[in-house]
Amino acid sequence: MTHIRIVLVEPRYTGNIGSIARIMKNFGFDDLALINPPVLDIDSIKMAMHASDILESAKIYDKIKDAIDESDYVVGTTSVVGGRSYVRKLYLTPDRLKMILKDKEGIVSILFGREDNGLSNEELKLCDAVLNIPSSSDYLALNLAQSVGIILYELYSVEKNDTDKDYFPDKDDLIYLEDHLLRLLYKINFPKIDKEKTVLMIKRILETAGAGRNEIQHIRGILSAIEKKIDEGMR
Amino acid sequence: MTHIRIVLVEPRYTGNIGSIARIMKNFGFDDLALINPPVLDIDSIKMAMHASDILESAKIYDKIKDAIDESDYVVGTTSVVGGRSYVRKLYLTPDRLKMILKDKEGIVSILFGREDNGLSNEELKLCDAVLNIPSSSDYLALNLAQSVGIILYELYSVEKNDTDKDYFPDKDDLIYLEDHLLRLLYKINFPKIDKEKTVLMIKRILETAGAGRNEIQHIRGILSAIEKKIDEGMR
Repeated sequence: MTHIRIVLVEPRYTGNIGSIARIMKNFGFDDLALINPPVLDIDSIKMAMHASDILESAKIYDKIKDAIDESDYVVGTTSVVGGRSYVRKLYLTPDRLKMILKDKEGIVSILFGREDNGLSNEELKLCDAVLNIPSSSDYLALNLAQSVGIILYELYSVEKNDTDKDYFPDKDDLIYLEDHLLRLLYKINFPKIDKEKTVLMIKRILETAGAGRNEIQHIRGILSAIEKKIDEGMR
Repeated sequence: MTHIRIVLVEPRYTGNIGSIARIMKNFGFDDLALINPPVLDIDSIKMAMHASDILESAKIYDKIKDAIDESDYVVGTTSVVGGRSYVRKLYLTPDRLKMILKDKEGIVSILFGREDNGLSNEELKLCDAVLNIPSSSDYLALNLAQSVGIILYELYSVEKNDTDKDYFPDKDDLIYLEDHLLRLLYKINFPKIDKEKTVLMIKRILETAGAGRNEIQHIRGILSAIEKKIDEGMR
C-alpha cells in the first residue's frame, strides 16, 4: 500500500493549482506539495471548487529535496521521451506506474514541472523513474492539470488491488540476483564504471516489467550456468 | 477503425472549451461539435494554446440530434451512476469503452453535459451507452475538460501511439538479441527444453518493461563479454 504525494515544481498559474486540488479530491488523494508556488488567489479557489481543503493543507517548500525527503520512490514526469539523452532512466507510462505501485510500500512522490519548461535534467536525476503520457507528435505537451488528472485516474484503482502476493519476488530474491549479476560482471571484466549502472538497469527493467518470483529464479539459474561454464574454463 | 466526435452539450465556460480543444489535439482527435455554446472569447483561445485550429473548425448546432445524426454509436457521460434509475443503460468505464471501440467501425460520438447539470435523462436516452469515470464518493464530479482528457487518454491507444520512434528498439535489435541469447544458452548447455522458453521469457520482460534501444544494446554488450570469456576458457 502506497501513499501518493503530488509535487508541483514552480507552477506558475494559480488556476492550474486549483484544478489539481480538485482532481486530487475527485480521485481520493490529498497530499499536495508546492515548490516555490505563486501566491494562491481567487483563480485557484475557483478552480478547486469543493477541494479548497486540499489547497489549504498544501505544504510549501523552497527545495524539491525537502519535499521528497521521506519518499521511498520518486517519479518525474516529462512530455519528451528520449530527448534528454543523458538522463538515463526507464520511461514509464501511467498504466505501467500503476503496475509498479501495486507492489510498493511507503511514500511515492510524483513530480510535475513548470508549465513552460517541465523539469530540468538535474531535477529528473533526483527521480527513480521518469513517466511520460504518450501523446500525439503533433502536440506533445499536455496541460499541467490534465497530466495530473490522467495519472491519478490510473492510480485510483491501485488501492483496490488484490494481486496474488506469491507472484512477486520478495526483497531477498532481488538482492541475490543483484549480487549474482555483479559477481558475473566482475568475472567477465565488464567495463568498471558500467558495472553498477548495469545492475541498476537490469533491476529497473525487471521491476518495470513486474517480473515474478519465477522469472527472477529462472534468470538466476542462467547466471549460475554461465558462471559454472566460465569457472570450468579457468581451471 | 472508428472516428471519434466530441460533443459538448451547452458548455458554459469558454475556458473549458479551449482546454478541451488542447487535450483533443494532444491525443490526435479533431472533430469537435458544440451544442448552443457561448461565444468563444479570449479565454478559450488562451486555454487552447496550439489547438486553435480545432476551435475554429468546431461545428455548432442547436440540437444534439443534428450533431449525432451520422453517428454509428453514441456514448453519454455522467458523474452519477445509477442515480437516474429510469435511464436503463449499460454503464461503461473509459477502459471498457476502449475495448468496445476496438471492434467498432464508423463515427462514435461522445456526449458531455453541462458543467453544473450534466446531461438530462432525455439526452441520455439518445445514447447507446452511458460512461462514468470512477471517482471518489467524497467528490464525484470531475471538471469537464478533465473528463474529456481522461477518456481521450484511454482512447488514444486505440488509434495507436507514435511516441519517439528512436527510443524504442526496432525488430532487428530484438532478433539479434534473441539469436545472441540462444547461442549463449547452447554454449553453457542450458537445459534443452528450457532454451526457447527462456528466450521467450526474456523477450516478454523487455517488451513489458518498454526497454529502449539503448538498453537492448547494453544487454547485447554483456552477452558478448560473457561469450568472449567462455571462448577464452575453451581455447
